[in-house]
Amino acid sequence: MPVPGPGYSITVRVEAPASTSAAGDLTTAVGRVGGVLTAFDVVESHSDSIVVDISANALSENHANDITQTLDSLPGVKVRKVSDRTFLIHLGGKIEVTPKVALRNRDDLSRAYTPGVARVCQAIANNPEDARRLTIKRNTVAVVTDGSAVLGLGNIGPAAALPVMEGKAALFKKFADVDAWPVCLDTQDTEEIIKIVKAIAPVYAGINLEDIAAPRCFEIEKRLREQLDIPVFHDDQHGTAIVVVAALRNALRVVGKNIEDCKIVVSGVGAAGSAIIRLLLRKNPGDIVAADIDGIVHSARGNLDDNLAWIASHTNKQQVSGTLHEALAGADVFIGVSAPNLFGAEQVATMNKDAVVFALANPDPEIDPLEAQAHAAVVATGRSDFPNQINNVLAFPGVFRGLLDAHANNIDDTMLLAAADAIADVVDNGMLNASFIVPSVFDSAVAPAVAEAVRKAVRAER
Amino acid sequence: MPVPGPGYSITVRVEAPASTSAAGDLTTAVGRVGGVLTAFDVVESHSDSIVVDISANALSENHANDITQTLDSLPGVKVRKVSDRTFLIHLGGKIEVTPKVALRNRDDLSRAYTPGVARVCQAIANNPEDARRLTIKRNTVAVVTDGSAVLGLGNIGPAAALPVMEGKAALFKKFADVDAWPVCLDTQDTEEIIKIVKAIAPVYAGINLEDIAAPRCFEIEKRLREQLDIPVFHDDQHGTAIVVVAALRNALRVVGKNIEDCKIVVSGVGAAGSAIIRLLLRKNPGDIVAADIDGIVHSARGNLDDNLAWIASHTNKQQVSGTLHEALAGADVFIGVSAPNLFGAEQVATMNKDAVVFALANPDPEIDPLEAQAHAAVVATGRSDFPNQINNVLAFPGVFRGLLDAHANNIDDTMLLAAADAIADVVDNGMLNASFIVPSVFDSAVAPAVAEAVRKAVRAER
Repeated sequence: MPVPGPGYSITVRVEAPASTSAAGDLTTAVGRVGGVLTAFDVVESHSDSIVVDISANALSENHANDITQTLDSLPGVKVRKVSDRTFLIHLGGKIEVTPKVALRNRDDLSRAYTPGVARVCQAIANNPEDARRLTIKRNTVAVVTDGSAVLGLGNIGPAAALPVMEGKAALFKKFADVDAWPVCLDTQDTEEIIKIVKAIAPVYAGINLEDIAAPRCFEIEKRLREQLDIPVFHDDQHGTAIVVVAALRNALRVVGKNIEDCKIVVSGVGAAGSAIIRLLLRKNPGDIVAADIDGIVHSARGNLDDNLAWIASHTNKQQVSGTLHEALAGADVFIGVSAPNLFGAEQVATMNKDAVVFALANPDPEIDPLEAQAHAAVVATGRSDFPNQINNVLAFPGVFRGLLDAHANNIDDTMLLAAADAIADVVDNGMLNASFIVPSVFDSAVAPAVAEAVRKAVRAER
Repeated sequence: MPVPGPGYSITVRVEAPASTSAAGDLTTAVGRVGGVLTAFDVVESHSDSIVVDISANALSENHANDITQTLDSLPGVKVRKVSDRTFLIHLGGKIEVTPKVALRNRDDLSRAYTPGVARVCQAIANNPEDARRLTIKRNTVAVVTDGSAVLGLGNIGPAAALPVMEGKAALFKKFADVDAWPVCLDTQDTEEIIKIVKAIAPVYAGINLEDIAAPRCFEIEKRLREQLDIPVFHDDQHGTAIVVVAALRNALRVVGKNIEDCKIVVSGVGAAGSAIIRLLLRKNPGDIVAADIDGIVHSARGNLDDNLAWIASHTNKQQVSGTLHEALAGADVFIGVSAPNLFGAEQVATMNKDAVVFALANPDPEIDPLEAQAHAAVVATGRSDFPNQINNVLAFPGVFRGLLDAHANNIDDTMLLAAADAIADVVDNGMLNASFIVPSVFDSAVAPAVAEAVRKAVRAER
């Protein structure tokens, strides 16, 4: 099912005979083992041999090795070296800190540093609000993680989480000109994390929590929101919820249903699932039924933590119990942020007509999207090789651009819903169809539209 | 004594009559009240009037107001607006976070972010040392302050300290291509600061402590050095000590004395003074006598804290007591990092022949340098408008460049002394004289020389 992608792309430098068939032999060999050739560059050419850089996408590390070995086993061919293009672009990290001011001579130095800077410091000491005018605080967001729930990799710790946080910072700058800085914390203690984020806050105008495991993330977010005067956003929760709500609005436009009439099944009640449920409740849905590894969430179920107890008491109007499969019967919408391969086409067939299936587990969704398509009217995943990718990149850059521009001191559901509507509205009626319910992540209209909606929402609350 | 400098430079936009004498009247007026004209730009010209931007350096904010009012009071002249050029360059902060990787299309995104980034995270989780290869850690330093001892401004807090830390980060990049990030902590509790710096350390390959008050800074530095596997440097201590030791080596070359024969008086035993004493002791000086606000430091003096007790037992061979003035009698070298105007020419006259005076208190030195010159052979200050400026910019960029390049896990006095020798050596015999004992801060040979010396020192200890 998965296809070779650029996440596993390699460049293999080979020495081959200078025969007329050599090029063909090499490219055929890549295709024979399932690699996708993306470039063929002759580096050296001699009378009896050539040196070629062959770039190809693979499925996995093992698959990349297969491709390399296949090339090496061709008659007369020798692999000189293999470069992994993903690792190459990570060498030395993906972001840097660059001066915005010239420091060419003594005059520059006297203004940007001592003695001139003393007056700027004094101005901020006298009027703390000036920090938003005279320092990087105006445009800077902390991307904070404890490395406890990184991508699908789990608890890999703060150092191993850093490449994700750097990537996030790069996306913040690229899509919304926000300066974001990775804060990877070598502690997974809730109280310590809260204390540390409060202590580092003077430099930042916003906090983006990232890849922090549930239920710890709920407490951290809640307490920081109470205690800080800058907005605190947890991308795994709120970013995902925004994009899901946007996608669902457009999916329901496609099938012509109102959310007030829909039964929505949410699989997974971690950070993402819980936030999706909370935000969806603001849209007044017909009903939401949540399920986790122990089945449908209802108030009589044992061992509910605070988060699950809240969900049980705010969803599942009939307080039914049972399995995820049972929940799906008669549902209009499935939203999965849980685990791979939980059900198949036969369960989708039990859903209402024109069912909407968002199978967002990464990298392997709750149901094979091609199977889901057999019975569902609209299918979305978290994957980039399938239509309707639910990707947080659609939300977080614009959300923070808006918050920073409006000097927001907090963030609330009204702002999240405004962002969701802005994303949904980028897809106009002429573009909307079952395979296009969310804009492309590279659509440059998205971040400005989200930012504008968030700015308006912040200002409306003043 | 101080002269108008670019730290207080303003640009005044005035409307004036289009008479032949107008320009002369304007420039004369600036000079009459002591301003230094730096630019005269005609913005608009009409038949009966001109609009001019007059840029001038002033002594202080009040002086800048005097200049503006003088211009406004000229016949027919109207001041339209006044821009403070120091504040202008601080608008929105002085550094930004920029991506080093392209994010133009899906392939770029797949490599720099998901799904490709997962393999990079996994590689670091499997082999933590890979963080120095595959993340920003390789080249990144935290500039950490609690805002308790900022420049000469004292305890102005973390937000008001940020412009200094941003300036420092800009200098790190400009002079040594080091990525430095401001960490301004909203706590002044020693234990909390230690805990926080340890927790944020995964992102960094070095810690630069900055503007943290003594004696707290000693404990923080000591404990972090024990507990972290990356070098911890306190610029106010070690940066200053390096440049002082470098300058002293060259000053003694000028006067032809050996440090082993010299009596050195150090005024001020805070962060800078204590570190200077500790590093000087490694050079085996004839004697050091330290003094603070209570006079000469000796073991029998009451109320010595740990730091002062250590200094008392390692300096002052005769264990004399008395005042700073008494200490100066018969001294070869004075090094002041204390307070303004502590003594005059008559005390310098009591020092040995060919005395060396480093009066480094900022912005006003321990003795007017012109007065000191009457009797001393070599005089240095911390000021940019006098020869021999002792400026930490000579040290910290190159020191961290060397530490990062060598993947140093710690920093010690041998490395600091290597850096000092490298700075001193940039001034060769042909350049050396009483007015040129340290290189210019803009000498591009300094940082690479310091880096090379530090790299060698790190490697020699392996």
